[in-house]
Amino acid sequence: MAATEQDPVFPAERVQAFIASALLALGLPEADAQTCAQRMTEADLRGVDTHGIFRLPHYARRIQAGGINRRPHVRPVRETPVTALVDGDNAMGHVVMTAATHLAIRKAAQSGLAWVGVFNSNHAGPAAVYSTMPVSHDMVGLYMTVANANHMAPWGGVELILGTNPISVAIPAGEEPPIALDMATTVSSYGKIKLAAQKGESIPVGWMVDRRGQPLTDPQRSHEGFLLPIGGYKGYGLNVVIGMLAGLLNGAAFGRNVVDFNQDLATPNNGGHTIFAMRVDCFRPPDEFKRDMDRSIREIRASQRMEGVDRIWLPGEMEFHAIRERRERGIPIAPAVVRQLRALADTLGLPFTLTES
Amino acid sequence: MAATEQDPVFPAERVQAFIASALLALGLPEADAQTCAQRMTEADLRGVDTHGIFRLPHYARRIQAGGINRRPHVRPVRETPVTALVDGDNAMGHVVMTAATHLAIRKAAQSGLAWVGVFNSNHAGPAAVYSTMPVSHDMVGLYMTVANANHMAPWGGVELILGTNPISVAIPAGEEPPIALDMATTVSSYGKIKLAAQKGESIPVGWMVDRRGQPLTDPQRSHEGFLLPIGGYKGYGLNVVIGMLAGLLNGAAFGRNVVDFNQDLATPNNGGHTIFAMRVDCFRPPDEFKRDMDRSIREIRASQRMEGVDRIWLPGEMEFHAIRERRERGIPIAPAVVRQLRALADTLGLPFTLTES
Repeated sequence: MAATEQDPVFPAERVQAFIASALLALGLPEADAQTCAQRMTEADLRGVDTHGIFRLPHYARRIQAGGINRRPHVRPVRETPVTALVDGDNAMGHVVMTAATHLAIRKAAQSGLAWVGVFNSNHAGPAAVYSTMPVSHDMVGLYMTVANANHMAPWGGVELILGTNPISVAIPAGEEPPIALDMATTVSSYGKIKLAAQKGESIPVGWMVDRRGQPLTDPQRSHEGFLLPIGGYKGYGLNVVIGMLAGLLNGAAFGRNVVDFNQDLATPNNGGHTIFAMRVDCFRPPDEFKRDMDRSIREIRASQRMEGVDRIWLPGEMEFHAIRERRERGIPIAPAVVRQLRALADTLGLPFTLTES
Repeated sequence: MAATEQDPVFPAERVQAFIASALLALGLPEADAQTCAQRMTEADLRGVDTHGIFRLPHYARRIQAGGINRRPHVRPVRETPVTALVDGDNAMGHVVMTAATHLAIRKAAQSGLAWVGVFNSNHAGPAAVYSTMPVSHDMVGLYMTVANANHMAPWGGVELILGTNPISVAIPAGEEPPIALDMATTVSSYGKIKLAAQKGESIPVGWMVDRRGQPLTDPQRSHEGFLLPIGGYKGYGLNVVIGMLAGLLNGAAFGRNVVDFNQDLATPNNGGHTIFAMRVDCFRPPDEFKRDMDRSIREIRASQRMEGVDRIWLPGEMEFHAIRERRERGIPIAPAVVRQLRALADTLGLPFTLTES
């Protein structure tokens, strides 16, 4: 379902407006519908096609099945000047994480840094959407989350009790695009496996293994195996600590009690996230730091390339360029997704306002 | 130089006392010599043989070459209740990081959490020695550092401008050993490559590539290639953000200005580290959290294993068992290292007190 160059493109404003109207029709308050629409459109602008409007039909099914609280009261239940534990009240994850990130930024602006943990939340879109929010305040951002389905086994194990648990770190720069790492702790996402299965393609050795540890390259057989962590036992370890910090520390799900949000539409997910924001000026004058960041970014980019490599990219740089290009040219959406969105509009009795540029 | 089961073993107290006496003879103040000896012995107890007493001859060479400040004034130069920037004054890294970690724990005890950045430091031993210090205070610990030599290239590049930049996260548990992830962001350490070269063994595909991106499996040719990051571009990205947070944010070296501490004994390293400590009770009652940690740890350990796998390990669990065993049985040290230590004692005019159990 990833969009391709040939797909029709839609202006970001229209994408955002359509998402907001659908969520409003599904019973979300106006402000929450707008917040979700903004975050989801940001995902599409970043080029993370699997985490933007593509998810709307699925979110709609969860909302209609009662798996999401339409009228939530998102609030901190434990708080210090530099920490908060936020009860997401089973709201849309985008609503919860937007509130949590704003809270972290406010606290960090006041005290230098803040760590906000979240429970009772749901899928919130791509990690970098939140980790990058502190950057314009001259803050570093760090975001971790427990994935909403388990497609990985412990190292040496065969039971699917771990997810792709991603981590994202964003760091301000000067003239250069800010750094924005956003990575799952598995070699591949499960979305890429499903995409390969749809296209009838095989997947590379190293993405999945079967229950005997043998490489699994036929994505049609994905149910017989599991995703591999990056760096073997290292990625497994990183995955576990992210699950404990973003999940257990907040009283959120991690491990066997994670609800597969694709299979089970009605059970609350008790999703966990963590957002951390920290002011650069606690350590160095921001201008000086950002000049140093520019120098470092340019040093890496300009370093000697391997034969056949056109360019060395910094973390988040591709997404930075995607945002510029898609704001200008529009967001490509695969025709199959457009059909699903049209069907959703019909179901909700909405005019289908998502027309091409 | 890694110790094996057959090596002679030495009581931890004698190892620590010998290190302290050598550093004292090298001109370090008594308290600093003791601190270094304690941290280095902890490395050996954890089973990280490449980061303990094995390093003493090299540290001695650096101290004698003027590469380390024997009489440093380690101090915070910028401070808030929840942050500090510490000038290591080119002291032994163990001295700097011990002070920085104690400072982070004190601030976190007061305010809930603290992030302490360090510059002007040196090699400080294994990451988990510091990340685990907050754990007994019912705090989470996070440590990151810029490696003291560059053996990796940017993703798509061929220039050695990145190190193994490790990250370590420690989380308290109840009856179970605390979680203590400690991982380099490269698939293999450079130490393992050198060890394979010494033994005349080949290294697995995936550890190193040559300048054309082809697998390099002959460790004698390691100078023709570079270490690979875990998960390809993901590990590269994680490596870069660790370098920026533990290095650039503190005004410490990262990239081309990293001094190779093995090649250059006299130039100050301007080493950078970061330690973060956070009280669990900002989020949940510690007892409740630790019970949940125990449950999660047991769930993972007891999950179904792959055929032929004896046990599923949690991050830091092997080291936890190594500490118990080595405290009791002694620390194994390879005969070649013992010879080097004897030579060092001779040079310093010290009696060789490092005798076997």
